[in-house]
Amino acid sequence: MTLREDYSASGFQFRAKSITMNDSRRQDVSNTLRILVATDCHLDYMEKDEIRRHDSFQAFDEICSIAEEKQVDILLLGGDLFHKNKPSRSTLVKAIEILRRHCLNDQPVQFQVVSDQTVNFPNTFGHVNYEDPHFNVGLPVFSIHGNHDDPAGVDNLSAIDILSVCNIVNYFGKMVPAGSGVGQITLYPILIRKGSTAVALYGLGNIRDERLNRMFQTPQAVQWTRPEPQEGCEVSDWFTILEVPGMGFHITQPGSSVATSLIDGESKPKHVLLLEIKGNQYRPTKIPLTAVRPFAYIEVVLKDEPDIDPNDQNSILEHLDKVASQWSNRKAVNGSEPKLPLVRVKVDYSGFMTINPQRFGQKYVGKVANPQDILIFSKTSKRSQKEGNLIIQTS
Amino acid sequence: MTLREDYSASGFQFRAKSITMNDSRRQDVSNTLRILVATDCHLDYMEKDEIRRHDSFQAFDEICSIAEEKQVDILLLGGDLFHKNKPSRSTLVKAIEILRRHCLNDQPVQFQVVSDQTVNFPNTFGHVNYEDPHFNVGLPVFSIHGNHDDPAGVDNLSAIDILSVCNIVNYFGKMVPAGSGVGQITLYPILIRKGSTAVALYGLGNIRDERLNRMFQTPQAVQWTRPEPQEGCEVSDWFTILEVPGMGFHITQPGSSVATSLIDGESKPKHVLLLEIKGNQYRPTKIPLTAVRPFAYIEVVLKDEPDIDPNDQNSILEHLDKVASQWSNRKAVNGSEPKLPLVRVKVDYSGFMTINPQRFGQKYVGKVANPQDILIFSKTSKRSQKEGNLIIQTS
Repeated sequence: MTLREDYSASGFQFRAKSITMNDSRRQDVSNTLRILVATDCHLDYMEKDEIRRHDSFQAFDEICSIAEEKQVDILLLGGDLFHKNKPSRSTLVKAIEILRRHCLNDQPVQFQVVSDQTVNFPNTFGHVNYEDPHFNVGLPVFSIHGNHDDPAGVDNLSAIDILSVCNIVNYFGKMVPAGSGVGQITLYPILIRKGSTAVALYGLGNIRDERLNRMFQTPQAVQWTRPEPQEGCEVSDWFTILEVPGMGFHITQPGSSVATSLIDGESKPKHVLLLEIKGNQYRPTKIPLTAVRPFAYIEVVLKDEPDIDPNDQNSILEHLDKVASQWSNRKAVNGSEPKLPLVRVKVDYSGFMTINPQRFGQKYVGKVANPQDILIFSKTSKRSQKEGNLIIQTS
Repeated sequence: MTLREDYSASGFQFRAKSITMNDSRRQDVSNTLRILVATDCHLDYMEKDEIRRHDSFQAFDEICSIAEEKQVDILLLGGDLFHKNKPSRSTLVKAIEILRRHCLNDQPVQFQVVSDQTVNFPNTFGHVNYEDPHFNVGLPVFSIHGNHDDPAGVDNLSAIDILSVCNIVNYFGKMVPAGSGVGQITLYPILIRKGSTAVALYGLGNIRDERLNRMFQTPQAVQWTRPEPQEGCEVSDWFTILEVPGMGFHITQPGSSVATSLIDGESKPKHVLLLEIKGNQYRPTKIPLTAVRPFAYIEVVLKDEPDIDPNDQNSILEHLDKVASQWSNRKAVNGSEPKLPLVRVKVDYSGFMTINPQRFGQKYVGKVANPQDILIFSKTSKRSQKEGNLIIQTS
């Protein structure tokens, strides 16, 4: 995940909390749009795995909790909320449960969507969810689809359409290319106002068959509708956010023609980004997720290990055991439930025998999350490494 | 569908509307629980059929419209709302859309659920939907599951669980038999109070593998928990409704030990039942559905038809054509969209040749809803009929 960790060059800073909130601080708050950005939750990833099947839901629950605690204005999801475009009943129930718990509350919504909502949200109801008088939406979620949960079938529906008709997600950026050949798409932004701050949010959900890539290479195939002038807001004043799966999030400050990449959409969510926008300034803050399962990845080149005898399989076994056991059983305690780590040892076995990964894993049952596939054997590594190459992430 | 059309023997009658509503009338209303009962909607039945795929949704929409217009207290669904237990995205979206349009409104809910709601509705939220402060439920829907939409999978979920977690349906009667062998089930009724009227609603969703049948034949396998005495309501005062798929709806008036069957659960919904309960009296009113597609069923015995020559296939064709064409193209106009009729001709062809049903149907494309299977050939009929046996239902 690529995140801009430095603050905006413009040096926009929030004031520290003070006991007496002065007018300036109050103005800051009422003019600052705060968006929590997350992507690729992949709900129901590893649904069949007894140990890991809850991981994606716990991460999504944590993301929603952060959004709720930090009282952001918007939770913005960048596609692939679901891992499959036909999620099971169980996945749908859990996803709706999480969203309902965090998004429906008495928190006041302090921004307005001033664009044509029937164009932005083309479901039967045609409005942003918090304006529906029959729901108490306190945390509006906006989402596009990715390549995993893209629309399909006779009615061209995504699983996110189900969340949309439930009124717990504002699904946008579902485009059907018009015309023949590569086709053409016209993007109408969601225009968001909060006090003096104006943000144009463009979304373009994944389009199958590499058509999207070809469209971006074809002149005029993708049309960006610019915001029309509104009272108190010139066209050039709009802060722009563009959300395209695989291309991540890009933002453009008013007056600037350079887009900045915020999040690489290909990564799994191990962090989320709090994006605070005030006028033409912004501040991105990276927030780590703590519910993520620890993951250790170790590379071993057998021929570089002096304690291994090529004719003695036991010596291979002992060495790999020594490597793997260092990282097994290091549970991360997040909230109520400690999590077993994922341990992966990539073994370059050139000139050696392989050993059975399943049998190797048996003694790690209950100590790592993936006993069945700790070891991966390969012959392709060209590098010669004395100590092995270790990447460990314990979040 | 078997419906009791006569009023209750006790002769309970509602007063006619009068311009000045007097106290007695007002008391009638505030003490009368009005339930609209419907069953077997089978949403997404014939989902792949271009003509008929909307039928089940239109019928369900009409049922919800009737409930909304008549301002009933409860819409009670008797199972098989969904035709499949893994409904498509499209089916889920349409079902939620219909429910959201009709059930969320400002209509006040004028009854109370006084039993333990966490026992009645064992989802994460554990309460009846209209008590959730974040939803504006004006028409509470209660439903059990049938044999088509029964719970399955690792989390034992039904598609109705999705509607339940969306808070638009109160799903009850999902029982997992405890113990070994046939198992045992304890039913806790939903206790409903409206003014002086008290209703105990028992639901038992379908259980697979004929286990339910065996349970009903096993002493003590199904335990019925009787309502505990409450302030102002003795145990014997509870009016009882029992809902079991395949067994239909049964009611027991307080003081009576004879259960009355209201609806045969096996039938498709061509009518709904308005059930009005006041104290120990009730009145059932049958309400026809108008959005149901007209259906003509005709039986023909070829050897009884004098105008048919066994050696001339054309004479068979002409005769069947004469029969079918009488009923084709008789569109029923319901609301905005006229509906083509379903026409089925059952042909006893003993001693004759059959003709190709697909070829026969070609000229009926655009005139009947089922051109591909108008004709069904059989040899089993023992009856000799001069004019054919005609059943027509035009709703």
